[in-house]
Amino acid sequence: MASERGRTGQPSRAGIVDVARHAGVSVATVSRALRGMPNVSQATRSRVLRSAAELQYTASPLASGLVTGRVRSVGVVLPYASQWFFAEVIGGIEEALRDQGYDLVLHVLADERRRRDFFDSLPVRRRVDALLVVGLPLDERESEVLRGLGIPLACVAEPVPGLHSELVDNVAAGRTAVQHLLNLGHRRIACIGGDMTGPERYNLPGLRTRGYRQALDRAGIDPRSEWERNGDFTPQGGESAMTSLLSSVDPPTAVFCQSDEMAFGAFRALRRSGLRYPQDISVVGVDGHELAEVFDLTTVAQPVAAQGAAAARWLIDRLDGHSRSEETDRPPEDDRPPGTDRPPEDVSLHPIRLVLRGSTAPAPDHR
Amino acid sequence: MASERGRTGQPSRAGIVDVARHAGVSVATVSRALRGMPNVSQATRSRVLRSAAELQYTASPLASGLVTGRVRSVGVVLPYASQWFFAEVIGGIEEALRDQGYDLVLHVLADERRRRDFFDSLPVRRRVDALLVVGLPLDERESEVLRGLGIPLACVAEPVPGLHSELVDNVAAGRTAVQHLLNLGHRRIACIGGDMTGPERYNLPGLRTRGYRQALDRAGIDPRSEWERNGDFTPQGGESAMTSLLSSVDPPTAVFCQSDEMAFGAFRALRRSGLRYPQDISVVGVDGHELAEVFDLTTVAQPVAAQGAAAARWLIDRLDGHSRSEETDRPPEDDRPPGTDRPPEDVSLHPIRLVLRGSTAPAPDHR
Repeated sequence: MASERGRTGQPSRAGIVDVARHAGVSVATVSRALRGMPNVSQATRSRVLRSAAELQYTASPLASGLVTGRVRSVGVVLPYASQWFFAEVIGGIEEALRDQGYDLVLHVLADERRRRDFFDSLPVRRRVDALLVVGLPLDERESEVLRGLGIPLACVAEPVPGLHSELVDNVAAGRTAVQHLLNLGHRRIACIGGDMTGPERYNLPGLRTRGYRQALDRAGIDPRSEWERNGDFTPQGGESAMTSLLSSVDPPTAVFCQSDEMAFGAFRALRRSGLRYPQDISVVGVDGHELAEVFDLTTVAQPVAAQGAAAARWLIDRLDGHSRSEETDRPPEDDRPPGTDRPPEDVSLHPIRLVLRGSTAPAPDHR
Repeated sequence: MASERGRTGQPSRAGIVDVARHAGVSVATVSRALRGMPNVSQATRSRVLRSAAELQYTASPLASGLVTGRVRSVGVVLPYASQWFFAEVIGGIEEALRDQGYDLVLHVLADERRRRDFFDSLPVRRRVDALLVVGLPLDERESEVLRGLGIPLACVAEPVPGLHSELVDNVAAGRTAVQHLLNLGHRRIACIGGDMTGPERYNLPGLRTRGYRQALDRAGIDPRSEWERNGDFTPQGGESAMTSLLSSVDPPTAVFCQSDEMAFGAFRALRRSGLRYPQDISVVGVDGHELAEVFDLTTVAQPVAAQGAAAARWLIDRLDGHSRSEETDRPPEDDRPPGTDRPPEDVSLHPIRLVLRGSTAPAPDHR
């Protein structure tokens, strides 16, 4: 019985040579097929797996790991598992890892205790071949712990010094969103972003705000501090930031929300105030959230799952020694912004694009 | 240098006895602390980890796994990683596993090839101590493969015969939503659900539709097949189902959407048709999606992360032999529906509740 095998934990009854003979392939092919490596056809892989199952052969990842020094797992570290952006990135990473026979091991550092525990125990436990950090700015000690592991490291969304990064140009994202509003004739443009001074040290709100200010500056408009609001990157935060903007003496005609989720909250504030978009106020977001289309939100979309997948492939290249960099979604050199904006070698920039929908319209005096 | 240790893969310089002596605790405590087991205080755990780091001790999970027969990993199998429900469940599972020192290994069976591959290779690879299936109805062969592993198994959202299940009563969810509309005086109530006959064999749409029909039946209303629409459990599907309901000769005054995401799509159809909720039509959903509040959607909420966490704790109880069943969110016996609805012993039902918001109002002729 197959079930006895697992329960008793007895050694397997057939060896890898038996499986190879049964499937009519080489031992190396069996090994590659069982480890889920590429370059084994689907037909061969199925034959090997069925032979192994028929002979009740059980590969021991523990034993083979002791030989190769590999566990064929990549750790993914992030502050939230359930937020839309993080869930999308996880999906992209998982698919890319699985394609190359790697497991994804999830580490959600949801609070300070978990975070301290993770970085304390990491050097001791060593259960992954590589680590991928998503949307989590690290302090000095934390990045030092990671670098001390001597394994490939990459990050997505928030750059970590010394780690390969897959990112979008967040300054350009802010500039693009606001330039769109300027082109529609708006000059009274507010910005709902995140905390730029708190202990969490996220870079993203500061970068998108810089893009907002750059676009205003180029149009000869002075930024007004009372029009820069903190929406905490949540729908609730977006709603209360929009509510307070609407109740000011001199409300804006357009709002740049640094995430689509904050824009959703802003929509609710409009509905509660009896206002409509885009007639009364234009709203533009950033992200390309799946519900942005449902709510007719104009947004600067970024390829979210693709950033995760690219980081995973970069790590696998380092682990398995393939050269697959030609295949990534990296934009050609010529598309990169000139001069100081040029990214260093270890940053891979992904394209952003304005997706035009019904939440933005010409400014009232331009109609 | 710490970094040399990882790169060269040399054996660690200190043994577990040295770490115990340095930290002033027993070897057993070091072992428990390093494996992330409970019953070690945070202070002791930190001291052990810092001693281990200082002495450059590296626990080998591979070697210790060979001794214990455990890899301290639980596999989580699901059809999507990025959808809201699945992302929430993953978050709940991860937190519960991590609390007991287990890793979460993610398996997203996004297409038929991945799905076949997973079940073919599972008996051979054996890299997890237990498996948790989320929202994925299995066929005969697939459940047989799982049971043949001889490891603890559990499922969430879609029951799998022979597996411990953490669920909500989906018939009651449908009934509750529709009874709410009936109580508001609506009698022309449509239902937007999912595919009940397709090859994917999801049970959920059929169960929620049964609840819809039961509520109508109790109110003496005959169900009308043209008012039961397939919205594919996506916002886009909800939008097109609502669009076609609105364009019928005899449109409903209220719609029960079997998921909040379909209700969001239905809202878009209303906006595009120049209709408002709840003035022109009432809408009720199921789930308790984080954006339901933002869009004032009345919904039958279920505890999503809690179902994942409960399934994870159930598995850990089987693995580590604790009895923690008192602590689960299981409702008391008395709250369960009487008679035939009573769940078998291996099903744990989670509570649902109607969350009243602005998307439902009395029927037009009841105002």
